[in-house]
Parts: sequence; C-alpha cells; structure tokens
Amino acid sequence: MSESDLLSRIIPMFGVSAFAGQGVVVPPGDDAAVVTARDSVVVTTDSMVRGRDWRDDWSTGHDVGIKVVAQNVSDVAAMGAVPTGLLVSVAADPETSLDWVIDLTRGIAFGAEDARCPVVGGDLSSAPAGVVIVAVTAFGDLEGRSPVLRSGARPGDVVAVAGDLGWSGAGLRLYELGLVDTTPSRPARDHTDREKAVSVLQWYHRSPRPPWESGPVAADGGATSMIDISDGLVRDGGRIATASGVELALDEQALREHFLAGPIELALGAEDGWRQVLAGGEEHSLLATFPEGSVPVDERAPWTVIGRVVEAGPEGPRLTVGGAVPSVTGWDHFAG
Amino acid sequence: MSESDLLSRIIPMFGVSAFAGQGVVVPPGDDAAVVTARDSVVVTTDSMVRGRDWRDDWSTGHDVGIKVVAQNVSDVAAMGAVPTGLLVSVAADPETSLDWVIDLTRGIAFGAEDARCPVVGGDLSSAPAGVVIVAVTAFGDLEGRSPVLRSGARPGDVVAVAGDLGWSGAGLRLYELGLVDTTPSRPARDHTDREKAVSVLQWYHRSPRPPWESGPVAADGGATSMIDISDGLVRDGGRIATASGVELALDEQALREHFLAGPIELALGAEDGWRQVLAGGEEHSLLATFPEGSVPVDERAPWTVIGRVVEAGPEGPRLTVGGAVPSVTGWDHFAG
Repeated sequence: MSESDLLSRIIPMFGVSAFAGQGVVVPPGDDAAVVTARDSVVVTTDSMVRGRDWRDDWSTGHDVGIKVVAQNVSDVAAMGAVPTGLLVSVAADPETSLDWVIDLTRGIAFGAEDARCPVVGGDLSSAPAGVVIVAVTAFGDLEGRSPVLRSGARPGDVVAVAGDLGWSGAGLRLYELGLVDTTPSRPARDHTDREKAVSVLQWYHRSPRPPWESGPVAADGGATSMIDISDGLVRDGGRIATASGVELALDEQALREHFLAGPIELALGAEDGWRQVLAGGEEHSLLATFPEGSVPVDERAPWTVIGRVVEAGPEGPRLTVGGAVPSVTGWDHFAG
Repeated sequence: MSESDLLSRIIPMFGVSAFAGQGVVVPPGDDAAVVTARDSVVVTTDSMVRGRDWRDDWSTGHDVGIKVVAQNVSDVAAMGAVPTGLLVSVAADPETSLDWVIDLTRGIAFGAEDARCPVVGGDLSSAPAGVVIVAVTAFGDLEGRSPVLRSGARPGDVVAVAGDLGWSGAGLRLYELGLVDTTPSRPARDHTDREKAVSVLQWYHRSPRPPWESGPVAADGGATSMIDISDGLVRDGGRIATASGVELALDEQALREHFLAGPIELALGAEDGWRQVLAGGEEHSLLATFPEGSVPVDERAPWTVIGRVVEAGPEGPRLTVGGAVPSVTGWDHFAG
C-alpha cells in the first residue's frame, strides 16, 4: 500500500469537517495545517528515519539535523509563512553514540538559526537496537497574509520555481553510483569541474538549504498556489494541477536550460540528469503559480518561470512537459 | 546516561536565550513551550515506541492512540491552556498490519474528539522491521491566561492534585505480575471487587483519560505552579520544588486516604500500592500549587489537597512525604 493510499484511508477518519470553524483554517492535505490562535499559526511535521532517510556512511548527524529542519521550514514557507518555532522529537537506540546525538543537535541548531526560528521544545524516547528517528514540527506566522494553497492555480497563470531542481536527487544518484564526496566541506579550487559538480550535488543532498525566504515573497506577490517540492517536480506539480483542476504546461526548453545545464548535466549526463530534474525528491524548492506579470523580482528570493497554467483538457488535470505527460513519476517515501 | 543528563547537554545548544523576545514566551524545560502567534499558542510533543512504551499483547492500537493523545493534551492542560490542535507523525515498518494502523487512528481520533481538539496534520515514514513509533504534537490556547509554570510555588501555598495517583503504574505492575485483564472493556457486574480493581487499573494504564479540564480551571483559580505527572508524584513534584526553590511538604495520611485506599490497595496491597502512588509514571494527572483558600471547587474538574509549600530548609529544595524524603524515585523513559 502506498503512502497516498494509506493517507487517503486515514485522513477522513479524523473527521476534520466536524471541527470546521473551531479554529482550523487549513485542514490536513496541504503542505501545512493552519490553526488559529487568535491570529493564526502554521504547523507542520516531518521525520527522518536512519537507514531509510539517511545512511550513516554518507551523512553526518549534522547533515541530518540541517535536513530535517529544512524539510519542515520549507513546508512553512510553501504556505507563505515565516517560521516561528520548532519542536524536535528523537527516538533513539540508547546505545546511539553521544557524539552523534550532539552532532545532530548542532545541525538542528544551525538550521534553526539559519531560518531564524527557535527550537522551543522536544521529546526524547528510547528505541530498539539500531533505530534512530528524528521528527520535527515547525510553526509559522503568516503575518497577515492569506495562506497560499495548492488549489488556487488558474488558467493564464505563470508557473515558477524558487531554488534548484534535481540537485538532491542527483546527489543521491551519485552516491548510489558509488561516487562519494570525500571533500571536507565544499569543493576546493584544484578539483575538476566534474568533481566540483559531484561535490556540490552530494552536499546539497546531505544538507539542503531551500529558498524559504521566497515563500512569503511569493505570497506577497500574489501567488495563486504554492507547494514544497519534496517528491519531485512532476509529482508535486501534479498535486497543484489536481487540487486546482488545471493543466500545468511546463516548458521543456526552459527546464533544460535553467536546471539541467550546469552541475547536474556535468555530473550525471543529460539523460540521467533530466530524470532528476523532473522527478528528484527532497529538493525542497518551491513551486508556485502567479497571475501573468506578477512573478516577484527579488534578488534574495528569485523565481524562475518554467511554464503556464492552462485549462484542463479531456484528460483532466495533469502536468505536461513540452506538451506530453512525462514518463517519470516521483518519490514515495512509504513505498520507497 | 539518563534523559535529564542528555537533555541538560542538548537544550543549551539550541541557544534559546539568543531568541528571547523573538516570540518565545516559555522556552524549553517546562511541560510545554509557548510561542506567540500574535496571541500565543502552546505547543508540546510526546512519542510512543512499540516495545518500549507499549506491548502489543497488552495494548491495542486503539489504546496506543488514546494514550499518545492523552500524554500530549495533559501537557497543554498543565500550562493552563485548552488544546486546539494535534499533529500526528507515525514511523512504521511497512509490514505493520493495516488493521492495527486503522485501530491506532481510531484511538487517536477518539482521544482528539474527547479533548475537543482536531488532528490538523501529520507525517508517515517507513521504519525498519518491527519498529512503530507514534509522535504527537499538541497545540493549545491560553485564552488570555498567563501560562502556569513550574517555578511559581511560594511558601504558604497549598499543594493539590487533579485526577488519580498510581493507577497507570499499578496497572503496569499488575501486567508485570502476570495478571492480564481479559475483560472486553470495563469490568462487569459479576466480577469480584479485586478483579474489578485489576481491570480498571489495567484499563487506565492502557488508555488513560487525564483530567485536562482541570488545567484551565486551575489557571483561572490562581494556580502558582502546575505540572503534568508523567514520571511519578515524587519526581514531578520534585521538579516544582526545584524550579520554585521551595519544599513541597506532602501529607502522607491524605495521600494514603485519597489515593492508596481503593482499587490500588485492593489490587496490589498496601506496600506495593504505596510505591505506585508515590512513583507510578504515565498517570498524566495534574499537580499544582494554589494560594491558601483558592483551590478551585469545580465538580467537573476537582482538586484534592495533598500538602503545603514551605520554605526550603538547609537541604535545599525538595519534596517530602510525612516529613521525610521518600526512598522511591520516579520513572526515566530514556534509561528505562
């Protein structure tokens, strides 16, 4: 059973509709839920499981800490909110090395400080031998903005991305191919361009730094829909298409030019690289739609136009690239 | 290394003081953290790990769902807040039976509805073989009240408890002794009094129903300090004593009369039962201090007086029962 199958069984059981008007501004099913607290607070949670979401021979505790914060903060950003707090819950084999736990904590603290978002609490549990699970909950403040949902894309809108596409997926693919970035941090001057490309992609896979400043900027600019790209462009873009009842018609040339050319093509080649641009998971970039002419121009939080929203045809809501449905799909954390 | 040792290493690393005034009303270290969202929102998280926090031969998924919600809601209540929302994060072996997951979900939904508190989101991850971890985050609204901290107890205050003491610990002890409640739900009419006592204690251990309505009532009544009893009366009362710099002088006779006499003594006898009253974990009752004469009288959310707050003596802040420091301590989830 896939994650979405299971969630579609579970979510209705919580009977959120029974609570409508009792403080739920946005119920389950979007990037984050919004609960009023007089003014609203955005809340979201995401976990990482050792051996599933990271491998100790590739990632340090510091990497894991940065990544689990990034995943959560990008969900807050995808609503148009600014992160305001984090809760951290760790379930770990009591034999887990203290050094590793401290390294994790430092990574979480680093990510939290980068997002200007304090860790305000947490929980620690013992887990069976070998198990380490890190769950983070993030809160965000819309600062008076309306939350940007997945369902607001309208024909005529422009589709744009903040951040990169496929870097995390490409970094993972490079690890799977046996290339391991052994540079101490970022690549040095005397590496070849390809070595630098491998290094930067693997670095981004281990410890992504999503463009969360772009979320509130998009909301201020009038974004009609927005999503955090966690399961790949095709899959997450498809979620906007479905929720909005439209077709996202992406421009193949723009995608190749802006996202394939560069480190990904250099490190993986055009074919494998293109697959990562379309379907690479855990990127945590933001995908949004804007009314024509209102894509924000902001150097700190730039947006790249990659397509248009058009009326859904007889095939129903869908995402197309160069007029065709791409054969790649995305990433299913539960099945994977 | 114990939980408190590890936490005392980790919490300072988050550098919460660096964020003071940036929206943190109550930093880590109390039952729950408070983050402003214009008006404030109370947030807390607590997890349950299969094989550590429950056993499948004793507890159903429904029981686990009720318990994990109860643990979180009681932390919200212990601040004086009303719960407003829950996030649920499940990391599970993909081979976990769907029936079990659905039963868990129903238990969570039951607990949430009982607390009038919607589940507003969550996260699902795959975990190694045999592993199931359920993490819940709860949010609460103080509705204009000041949060009730652990640090406000003052000499002359009265110490009181809402809910029972030792029921969950006694239920666990009875399971450990090999007595397993096989009644379908609550005890029936033709059971002996002891069988009924065993059944009700084991039922409470599996699926506690803490008196969360008493938290806001206590805050409205002027409670000077409050804590959720998750690690036993002695340990959690000791936390109020330490945070407030006082002695909690508990009345042995009042404790025996109100909490030992009844199901616990009937099921476990006086000696073992008394240990549970003092040190039994996972009760999730509320312990609070009130200025003399202001203990709330509220039939739906009653408080039982069990002692007084006195000046700390030369031994420093501590908890005493009948004038002596009890030899039992409490429950350490990480060491245990």
